[in-house]
Amino acid sequence: MEKLEMIYEGKAKQIYRTDDENLVIIHYKDDATAGNGEKRGTIENKGVLNNKISNMIYRYLMKHGIQTHLVEELNDRDSLCTKVDIVPLEVIVRNLVAGSAAARYKMEEGTKVLTPIMEICWKDDNLGDPLINDYHAIAFGLATREELDEIYAQTLKINDLMLKMWDEMGIQLVDFKIEFGRTKEGQILLADEISPDTCRLWDKHTGEKLDKDRFRRDMGNVEEAYKEIFSRLEKKED
Amino acid sequence: MEKLEMIYEGKAKQIYRTDDENLVIIHYKDDATAGNGEKRGTIENKGVLNNKISNMIYRYLMKHGIQTHLVEELNDRDSLCTKVDIVPLEVIVRNLVAGSAAARYKMEEGTKVLTPIMEICWKDDNLGDPLINDYHAIAFGLATREELDEIYAQTLKINDLMLKMWDEMGIQLVDFKIEFGRTKEGQILLADEISPDTCRLWDKHTGEKLDKDRFRRDMGNVEEAYKEIFSRLEKKED
Repeated sequence: MEKLEMIYEGKAKQIYRTDDENLVIIHYKDDATAGNGEKRGTIENKGVLNNKISNMIYRYLMKHGIQTHLVEELNDRDSLCTKVDIVPLEVIVRNLVAGSAAARYKMEEGTKVLTPIMEICWKDDNLGDPLINDYHAIAFGLATREELDEIYAQTLKINDLMLKMWDEMGIQLVDFKIEFGRTKEGQILLADEISPDTCRLWDKHTGEKLDKDRFRRDMGNVEEAYKEIFSRLEKKED
Repeated sequence: MEKLEMIYEGKAKQIYRTDDENLVIIHYKDDATAGNGEKRGTIENKGVLNNKISNMIYRYLMKHGIQTHLVEELNDRDSLCTKVDIVPLEVIVRNLVAGSAAARYKMEEGTKVLTPIMEICWKDDNLGDPLINDYHAIAFGLATREELDEIYAQTLKINDLMLKMWDEMGIQLVDFKIEFGRTKEGQILLADEISPDTCRLWDKHTGEKLDKDRFRRDMGNVEEAYKEIFSRLEKKED
């Protein structure tokens, strides 16, 4: 499958048309941003690591019944995927309160809560991806009630599967962000990536952060953290 | 029924114990605040007007099956109410996008949307009453799933009733905020006030704002707007 012209460039990825109108090639870059683009940099080899990490996680989820856009890993930085229209929602699951939620609700990072929290944010850089609720999503025409029901059901299942998967690798899944897409036929598929860019991953024993917070907060050893995640996933997949 | 000691003082009201442990007296003040207390002032006769306005609206809602805390208007500024523990949520209904939502989503004031929007905000001055969703409310222990279901069902009914009521008075109900309380027996009752302090009310024909935005935005004729609302409600009640 050959890359034709680029149809989209995001902060961390490019998307290319292929000669099959139902398939795209996603190319992973080393570029990293944080704070809605306010902080910019590169993390060496991030593109390669995230392409492989995301695909390993996707293969695990697909083995357990989650329908995703992933078709095939083509090379270090490129993956062939089903073409979807991204639902303009960032779907967040918080097993512990951290990051922006800890700031917003003035809670300590790592605060336990009575049940996992699902959030949806309106994917719109101009608005700063604000938190919304189901009524906003429907009233603004971002998704239908049926789509939201499907998205929440899949997200809960993904959280259960991921909690178990990361736990077996000695990692606490604090929170993560996923996105969904609509196929031409209107099917909802898990899309975008799942990686240390999009999850908070804390070593279960030492509490060490193995995710993009090392970049966001200038903690150093960013590439090493991504490599550690990659190598634990590789061991698990063997 | 006699006022005993004050048990709570909010921005616009005081609450007094009575010799019946299930009843309180709510006293309406003229004090007005806006922007989470950043702007302070008084609106002459607001306490009297809002006490009477809120009770007229409550009587209308009660006549149509809504259960509320209101027992009896005692005098110009005091009403006897069932004692409740306030559920720490501001429940907002937006028939048009205005105010903080217009700012948050960069929409024009008065933008029409596909369906009315219900929002819940965590009533916490220290946090600035942030928007939350049902998962937050449950995970943080603010309300149960059952309580939220009851609150949303009542709120929808209240919106339908109020849309009709205000429309008959030549007023467009843009949005409003309500609060609910739990009785000793765990029943959910509509509580707090409904007034130009808590609703956006636009004259249907001229578009004139007849609510607290006149105070928030220094538009003048604040008392006059509250009086206009009072007089239209009085005519309707006759």
